[in-house]
Amino acid sequence: MPHCILILGAGRSSSSLISYLIDHHKSLDLLVTIGDVSLLSAQEKAGAFAKAIQFDISDKQVSCEIIRNNDIVISLLPAALHPKVAELCIELKKHLLTASYVSEKMKGMDEKAKELGLLFLNECGLDPGLDHMTAMELIDDIKQKGGIIESFESFTGGLIAPTTDIENPWRYKFTWNPRNVVVAGQGTAKFLQNRKQKYIPYQQLFKRTTSITLPNLGDFEGYANRDSLNYLELYGLQSVNTMIRGTLRNKGYCAAWNIFVQLGCTDDTYELTGLQKMTHRDFIELFLHEDDKINTAKKLLSTLHLDAASNQLRCLEWSGFFSDELIGLEKGTPAQLLEHILNKKWKLSEGDKDHVVMWHRFTYALDEKTHEIQASMSVIGDDSVQTAMAKTVGLPLAIAAKLLIQQTLKTRGVVIPTSKEIYEPILKELSKLGIELKHH
Amino acid sequence: MPHCILILGAGRSSSSLISYLIDHHKSLDLLVTIGDVSLLSAQEKAGAFAKAIQFDISDKQVSCEIIRNNDIVISLLPAALHPKVAELCIELKKHLLTASYVSEKMKGMDEKAKELGLLFLNECGLDPGLDHMTAMELIDDIKQKGGIIESFESFTGGLIAPTTDIENPWRYKFTWNPRNVVVAGQGTAKFLQNRKQKYIPYQQLFKRTTSITLPNLGDFEGYANRDSLNYLELYGLQSVNTMIRGTLRNKGYCAAWNIFVQLGCTDDTYELTGLQKMTHRDFIELFLHEDDKINTAKKLLSTLHLDAASNQLRCLEWSGFFSDELIGLEKGTPAQLLEHILNKKWKLSEGDKDHVVMWHRFTYALDEKTHEIQASMSVIGDDSVQTAMAKTVGLPLAIAAKLLIQQTLKTRGVVIPTSKEIYEPILKELSKLGIELKHH
Repeated sequence: MPHCILILGAGRSSSSLISYLIDHHKSLDLLVTIGDVSLLSAQEKAGAFAKAIQFDISDKQVSCEIIRNNDIVISLLPAALHPKVAELCIELKKHLLTASYVSEKMKGMDEKAKELGLLFLNECGLDPGLDHMTAMELIDDIKQKGGIIESFESFTGGLIAPTTDIENPWRYKFTWNPRNVVVAGQGTAKFLQNRKQKYIPYQQLFKRTTSITLPNLGDFEGYANRDSLNYLELYGLQSVNTMIRGTLRNKGYCAAWNIFVQLGCTDDTYELTGLQKMTHRDFIELFLHEDDKINTAKKLLSTLHLDAASNQLRCLEWSGFFSDELIGLEKGTPAQLLEHILNKKWKLSEGDKDHVVMWHRFTYALDEKTHEIQASMSVIGDDSVQTAMAKTVGLPLAIAAKLLIQQTLKTRGVVIPTSKEIYEPILKELSKLGIELKHH
Repeated sequence: MPHCILILGAGRSSSSLISYLIDHHKSLDLLVTIGDVSLLSAQEKAGAFAKAIQFDISDKQVSCEIIRNNDIVISLLPAALHPKVAELCIELKKHLLTASYVSEKMKGMDEKAKELGLLFLNECGLDPGLDHMTAMELIDDIKQKGGIIESFESFTGGLIAPTTDIENPWRYKFTWNPRNVVVAGQGTAKFLQNRKQKYIPYQQLFKRTTSITLPNLGDFEGYANRDSLNYLELYGLQSVNTMIRGTLRNKGYCAAWNIFVQLGCTDDTYELTGLQKMTHRDFIELFLHEDDKINTAKKLLSTLHLDAASNQLRCLEWSGFFSDELIGLEKGTPAQLLEHILNKKWKLSEGDKDHVVMWHRFTYALDEKTHEIQASMSVIGDDSVQTAMAKTVGLPLAIAAKLLIQQTLKTRGVVIPTSKEIYEPILKELSKLGIELKHH
């Protein structure tokens, strides 16, 4: 009997996951099915060796029938849909793998999953995913040597390759869900610094960044993610002094993005209407004081006290925010309009390569000295399909599925890949595929 | 038969309303009843000539009995409770007067109220209330002269009297619901400037202020209120170029308040816990980077790029934010803690007098020239009970009740005091009480 794997969601981060499983379908005796609300999307990814079907989780009966015929469900659906998928997996006794954060609803299914002998492995992509695994490998290693970890900082980001789009001063394009990029950081970031809880509100987030220089890769910066305190317990780091997790960008990105934050362009709480004739420039002008005598760029400089020669201004100019091009949407929140305008220049073109970068820094006490470890991972995409993002999100899931089939993964219940049993074999195989952390 | 008036809510803004009605109980043949969730509060305000009762709108049956025995209900309850009160007034056929903004629910009762011959007069306090009335008087006056209004700016604020608390660099104390002051402006302000819609997000609100100088009163500043566009139609100003309504403060307040906004101290979306030992200084430190070598004030200066000699820093110092005094709350959102700390110095003391200031500026075209009108109102409280706030919120309501009893108010349905029939007699009587707009 073949092992039946159902992949839900045939979006851009599914490519490497699907390729890996198709590549191994003979050796592992797999039957791979790809379900997406768009049958066409599923067919495009499926090729000759996988089955494509239309899948809509809101149709419970059909979803049941489809899941019933499989052994493992790998879901790349939007995170909000995972509780529904998980409920069906409980009902039909199927394993579930996702790259999404564990929600409270998901957490509540732990006991039931254990009882039924099911693995519900979440946060097994890039971030969350590889960040947990690579960090835990280092943490376990330091602890085994007798070291006492004092601080942990970890930043991950999906960027563009140094060779791609070299005129782009942002050094960024959308390699991931654009909407999430536009509304990123709304809320308050919480972290620990020298044993003190610290809070950074949205209006400070892109100002209070961490500078990061990586050997052979250059200068980066990181802004804090929503709640780093959550991970103290999950990483077994309850006694550290400093703990911060965040998002990594090329140097200069945050100061430029901060313009949108400060002006209110990322606001997603109200809708603008009657935009038929609105240009890119008009959009920015909504958030600037009225003054016929000076142009948009000058108004921006004076409102935000920027330097005319600044990289920030260059970024906005490159993105066309001072142009009289029509936006091309009739309504939308400021955040939706911003996404639409940015997407005109930030959509990956054929030939573009993306770049995933992850960085960890630990300090720990051992033999009465303080030691520092810095390590980083750099993955460049093959092209605009087999992106670094698709590889780093999809391959950990694919390998987890393989390990589950091979009965190497014995853990059951709702888990994330912080235990050695899970991260060790996954990282080992990823390393063969060129995805690994390098110590500085 | 006496006219029975029920006043709901015996909080700080009820004093002048109650005094006025008690003063007129003989001449108008009134029976005044004061209901509050706290019977004691009701009794304190009622004195010898009014009846005090316990009133809880969540107990529908008892509320019905109480309202049934009255002719007019004046509600000073929190705005969110007004739909419930209004529903009972419809059911029992009673007039209703409030100083709150008309909600969608309230608006929906217009037809029913008209059908039953009831007046549901809302926004009949200070702001909203006197701002509408004084503005409409000017607008109608300009229009009658044949003038075409081009711009309208209007700012109102509850401050402290120039003689009160002269060391207080904020020139401000809580004369109104403290919580509303602390969370004021969260959301995005919308207004019209030179025929263009403009949006100011919270993070810019206290920076992009309007400077206002009033004869004999000094220098003030105003920040925009949530939605000025709403009032274009209500004021009959659909064709103006500029329309902005806002909140007025003494000069310097906004820059100092902006520190709390920028740091995230006004955040009301998450709760801090375990605060037993937290001091005022610790509270500010939550929002600053960690650095053992410099003190809190210096950290603040460097984080927000402030000048050490700035009034902003002096304000925070005066409010005790750099002191090691315990906060005295065990949990709360940042906004709740901020309110608690501020209240230690911002609570009105006996002998303190408050100060309500309102300012309107119009430009209009007439005889091929552009004209400007500026007018302002300044009301100083008698003491910490008969405050300027209590007078300006309560007296318009009290006078409206009198006019209703005297059958001078014929309008029915859900209305605000923008029609001449309502504002003219109210303003006329207020003027006798020393509350009136002065043209500059």
